[in-house]
Amino acid sequence: MRLKLLRSLLKALLIILINSNLTFYYAQNNKFGIVIHGGAGTILKERMNEEQINLYKAKLKEALKAGYTVLENDGSSMDAIVEAIKILEDSPLFNAGKGAVLTNLGTAELDASIMNGLNLEAGAVAGLKHVKNPITLARTVMENSPHVFLIGEGAEEFAKENNIEMTEQSYFITDERKEQLEKIKQREAEQNKHGTVGAVALDKNGNLAAGTSTGGMMNKKFGRVGDVPVIGAGTYANNNTCAVSATGHGEYFIRLSVARDISDLMEYKNLPLEEAAKEVIMYKLQNLGGTGGIIAIDRNGNITMPFNTPGMYRGYYLRSGKPVIKIFMEE
Amino acid sequence: MRLKLLRSLLKALLIILINSNLTFYYAQNNKFGIVIHGGAGTILKERMNEEQINLYKAKLKEALKAGYTVLENDGSSMDAIVEAIKILEDSPLFNAGKGAVLTNLGTAELDASIMNGLNLEAGAVAGLKHVKNPITLARTVMENSPHVFLIGEGAEEFAKENNIEMTEQSYFITDERKEQLEKIKQREAEQNKHGTVGAVALDKNGNLAAGTSTGGMMNKKFGRVGDVPVIGAGTYANNNTCAVSATGHGEYFIRLSVARDISDLMEYKNLPLEEAAKEVIMYKLQNLGGTGGIIAIDRNGNITMPFNTPGMYRGYYLRSGKPVIKIFMEE
Repeated sequence: MRLKLLRSLLKALLIILINSNLTFYYAQNNKFGIVIHGGAGTILKERMNEEQINLYKAKLKEALKAGYTVLENDGSSMDAIVEAIKILEDSPLFNAGKGAVLTNLGTAELDASIMNGLNLEAGAVAGLKHVKNPITLARTVMENSPHVFLIGEGAEEFAKENNIEMTEQSYFITDERKEQLEKIKQREAEQNKHGTVGAVALDKNGNLAAGTSTGGMMNKKFGRVGDVPVIGAGTYANNNTCAVSATGHGEYFIRLSVARDISDLMEYKNLPLEEAAKEVIMYKLQNLGGTGGIIAIDRNGNITMPFNTPGMYRGYYLRSGKPVIKIFMEE
Repeated sequence: MRLKLLRSLLKALLIILINSNLTFYYAQNNKFGIVIHGGAGTILKERMNEEQINLYKAKLKEALKAGYTVLENDGSSMDAIVEAIKILEDSPLFNAGKGAVLTNLGTAELDASIMNGLNLEAGAVAGLKHVKNPITLARTVMENSPHVFLIGEGAEEFAKENNIEMTEQSYFITDERKEQLEKIKQREAEQNKHGTVGAVALDKNGNLAAGTSTGGMMNKKFGRVGDVPVIGAGTYANNNTCAVSATGHGEYFIRLSVARDISDLMEYKNLPLEEAAKEVIMYKLQNLGGTGGIIAIDRNGNITMPFNTPGMYRGYYLRSGKPVIKIFMEE
């Protein structure tokens, strides 16, 4: 009788031990997190005052927290990146949504794309003039249309049919961008080509997602489109490898299929994420004469944020960590 | 004295021998050639009469010969593919240029792209309505602009500034396509999604080039763009690996970065061209539910033309060979 009791006790103890161990193991491996960027370029400490730096850092932190909260509450990586990117689009600080750079004609023309690493579904939009949050339209193209890539007026027609929030052109245009455009036209300022916002995330289910949104290149003409709506160039996600969002001189990123190349170096050459990203940004992009950077997260929750410009607005918030924000090269 | 003469004679003989051998070696290795396609899809022998088959074959042969002549006369692979694609664009038989499929509104909206394997330069255009030969505009974007990708009205403005031949909408629209659109709208005909034309070539200098041109998808709405203007999806060329032009259900080709994937499988996994192409078209594309095919030529002049549809208009013309044209699966 006592022996039986002892056995039961031991059994119960064993079950508790195994369970707690499993929970511990699961918690340890159940990594998740989000990485964001707000553009790379000639961002120099000596040109920014404390107040400006704090404004940027506060907005990046807000976006990181919004995305992280989704992940923490068992939300999907797709929901997390959209929440984060919307906050950056709505801020006039970044070259996406409100505060986008202006075309040669003084208008805003926006591009965005999104990709789901689980099933390789993707959505991309280019040449938008009235869609308040281009990233939500990219997602709607992915989810509610048989297509991947819609451009111009047709894309806006689709937006209206899908009850996407539309806005006036004037909403996007800030006084700062108007002044910048004038200065660039009069060659009083140098062209800073690298504004864009983006996010990548890994959720508790191990699903990766990537999204990118931009106003493109200041003073652009001729319906110029960069790498942002080009799946495989500015945005790529694949659960087998990683999720990538790029920012930089888009033409080079298209020619190099930057985001896809990083994924292929991982999948076909077994490079770790950081090495693959370094190879593409610090070697291939650099050699071709292109500038910019990427953020990426892999299936195991490793992250990397390489760039070959003086600065890149960037940050990450990983499971059981704290939000980390950086702007300049050495920080 | 005699010895000296004998020596001189022997020396001359040796030089002749070495030279002839070098010439032979050079000629043997100085491979060049062109491969073209005119779209993949539900192309069935029982649905075509002899006359139709001959029409298609004659036009494909004309395009092949035009491209081959360029290569034979020491021209570049870039010139060769443009010559070949222009002939297919000008023919009402194929879904590119004249005879493009029609949008839901009954208009023609054209996309094209081009890539130079030597330096990874690229040009892409989408949503054109008045450019007679979209492939020439793609090339002009590559060569005469700092950009890679131009869309819509802006792209046409650039075309005009660069004296690209423009034409009326009515030029593109044929009675056959009008009837097809009506039948598809009334669900009397099935949607055949896979018209496009393309060419890839290797020239005597070992340079690869790829180009693709299309009217997109019949009955398309909302400014839908497929894989054709997406560098890395419908078109890719890299002298280290191969040149690829795709035709098929574009959305799947974008999601899989089809053309770039074939190149990466060669570069990073050392797969031969045929195996790399098979892996992407017969396995990955098939598994995702996509249909279509590609043509490709590698740096050594090997070619492949896999597709997972009943037929694909295709042909090749390689050094010291004859033009070969095929349409159906087994031929």
